[in-house]
Amino acid sequence: MADKVLIYSRFPKSMMARFAERFELLDTGGRPAGEVFSADELGGVRAMLTAGGTPLGAEAMDLFPKLGAIVCYGTGYDGVDLEAAASRNIAVAHSPGANAASVADIAMTLMLATTRRILVADQYVRSGDWAASKQSPMMRPQAGMPGRHIGVYGMGEIGRKIAARCAAFESEVGYFSRSKYDLPYQYFPTLEALADWCSVLMIAVRAGAETQHVVNADILRRLGADGYVVNISRGSVIDEKALVAALSDKTIAGAGLDVYEKEPHAPDALTVLPNVVFAPHIGGHTLESHVAMQACVLANLTAFFEGKPLPHAVKSA
Amino acid sequence: MADKVLIYSRFPKSMMARFAERFELLDTGGRPAGEVFSADELGGVRAMLTAGGTPLGAEAMDLFPKLGAIVCYGTGYDGVDLEAAASRNIAVAHSPGANAASVADIAMTLMLATTRRILVADQYVRSGDWAASKQSPMMRPQAGMPGRHIGVYGMGEIGRKIAARCAAFESEVGYFSRSKYDLPYQYFPTLEALADWCSVLMIAVRAGAETQHVVNADILRRLGADGYVVNISRGSVIDEKALVAALSDKTIAGAGLDVYEKEPHAPDALTVLPNVVFAPHIGGHTLESHVAMQACVLANLTAFFEGKPLPHAVKSA
Repeated sequence: MADKVLIYSRFPKSMMARFAERFELLDTGGRPAGEVFSADELGGVRAMLTAGGTPLGAEAMDLFPKLGAIVCYGTGYDGVDLEAAASRNIAVAHSPGANAASVADIAMTLMLATTRRILVADQYVRSGDWAASKQSPMMRPQAGMPGRHIGVYGMGEIGRKIAARCAAFESEVGYFSRSKYDLPYQYFPTLEALADWCSVLMIAVRAGAETQHVVNADILRRLGADGYVVNISRGSVIDEKALVAALSDKTIAGAGLDVYEKEPHAPDALTVLPNVVFAPHIGGHTLESHVAMQACVLANLTAFFEGKPLPHAVKSA
Repeated sequence: MADKVLIYSRFPKSMMARFAERFELLDTGGRPAGEVFSADELGGVRAMLTAGGTPLGAEAMDLFPKLGAIVCYGTGYDGVDLEAAASRNIAVAHSPGANAASVADIAMTLMLATTRRILVADQYVRSGDWAASKQSPMMRPQAGMPGRHIGVYGMGEIGRKIAARCAAFESEVGYFSRSKYDLPYQYFPTLEALADWCSVLMIAVRAGAETQHVVNADILRRLGADGYVVNISRGSVIDEKALVAALSDKTIAGAGLDVYEKEPHAPDALTVLPNVVFAPHIGGHTLESHVAMQACVLANLTAFFEGKPLPHAVKSA
């Protein structure tokens, strides 16, 4: 009989089909597990697959008395209460690095689309305004990439790939992270100092309780009127209300966002703004990134059911 | 008395104000010079500033019997009949490299925006479709940058900057140009071979009579159903009708365009397509690129009026 895996978050059916070849899936479709399956069924669950951002605390874990492994799809595991898992002897694993290039690339895409105003440009051509020689204040020349100060917040695998890409664009790269690394980029000891220095802040930090609303009104103000913020980490890192205010009153010039505080909802006050480029959390959403993340999930689950250590266990768990 | 410079193309007033500090400008505003100025005034013109793509043949040159210098704003000089200029002893100069990074960056912006479908993504969030969990066939995962085959057509300063940026995205870069260079990219002896190999064709070739419609239906077909074409060179390089057909019947997946056959007009059959990202010829349109191009113009004009060789003369002229 195939090993059973509870699917705790909502995932595309095509992806589940692949896992169903190896495991018997109890798919909640993102609904509360207790509403979809009987206590008896939940009682037999030993492993689950979840999205790292989906809240998964002690109370939820206690619905599954035999739970031994929480496997996150993707890099993040910020929704998982790691202490609660550790105290219950539940291993937590993820897909580190599998989507790093894909996420770094969406960060670059959002930065370029925002600073070069590609949405406005596209509309200017499509509408016929260009052909009619109509003036467009949004199409005034902007600073380009050479010499631009790009601040990378967080220097994990994604941050490093963002930094390498920005360097190829002849930009200057600075970063702030908990640790200073042996990297050819200027280190700033505080996020404030990085924000003062840079004109684009790329948020690539691993999200958690300690990064909640760290990018607040003060940090945004430090970016300045020609400043941009790009977030591909988690929506929780930015104070979204402060961001709406800073974008609306031109405290900063624009933003590129792949993540939001309450996904899949982006507030109306944000989505009406012309100086933002939005993406629906598609950072890791490329063919090769999905293949790599699925390989990590399969490796984690297979090892667990064979009684072996999880190959991609969360280090702090 | 200030030296006189005829302004042959239409340029922004703010830019002309800067040149007017040094020269007396006869600004046609892009209209035929003979309609704006008297034959007497034109007869005294020794230097002109033009956009490289503006047609400027023997007949037009003969309106200015004393013309000694044609200075192009930007890299291109494809509108200028170089033989006609040479036979009249008219020097032709441009702004080589001044906008190379800015143009390479719009090529990258268009490629990323097109392959990651950022227009669709933005609209998916803004419309509320994401929040409503509506399916969007355009949001299916696509191939990302790592390992992607990027074909660069033309290996001048812009092509090299595109190649360096693509390499930082972990893509494989190949190129076709008249000459093979000592560069760490695979050389293809024909455009056909490059198109067979790559999934994104970046057109960065210097345009001219010999590149007219070189990217035709056959080349587009070779890119394949997952293929993209990005053009930041000149509209004339692509057969625009063949491109409309290839995009409409899904012979290729998409396109990113900064240039068109008849600017500022992009055909309606093109601008209705959802799988294209448009920009209104803003490749060189960044603050630092304008500053660098204006410095070249001033250096060329100043040298000419001082009787010195033009520092940025067109080599083949």
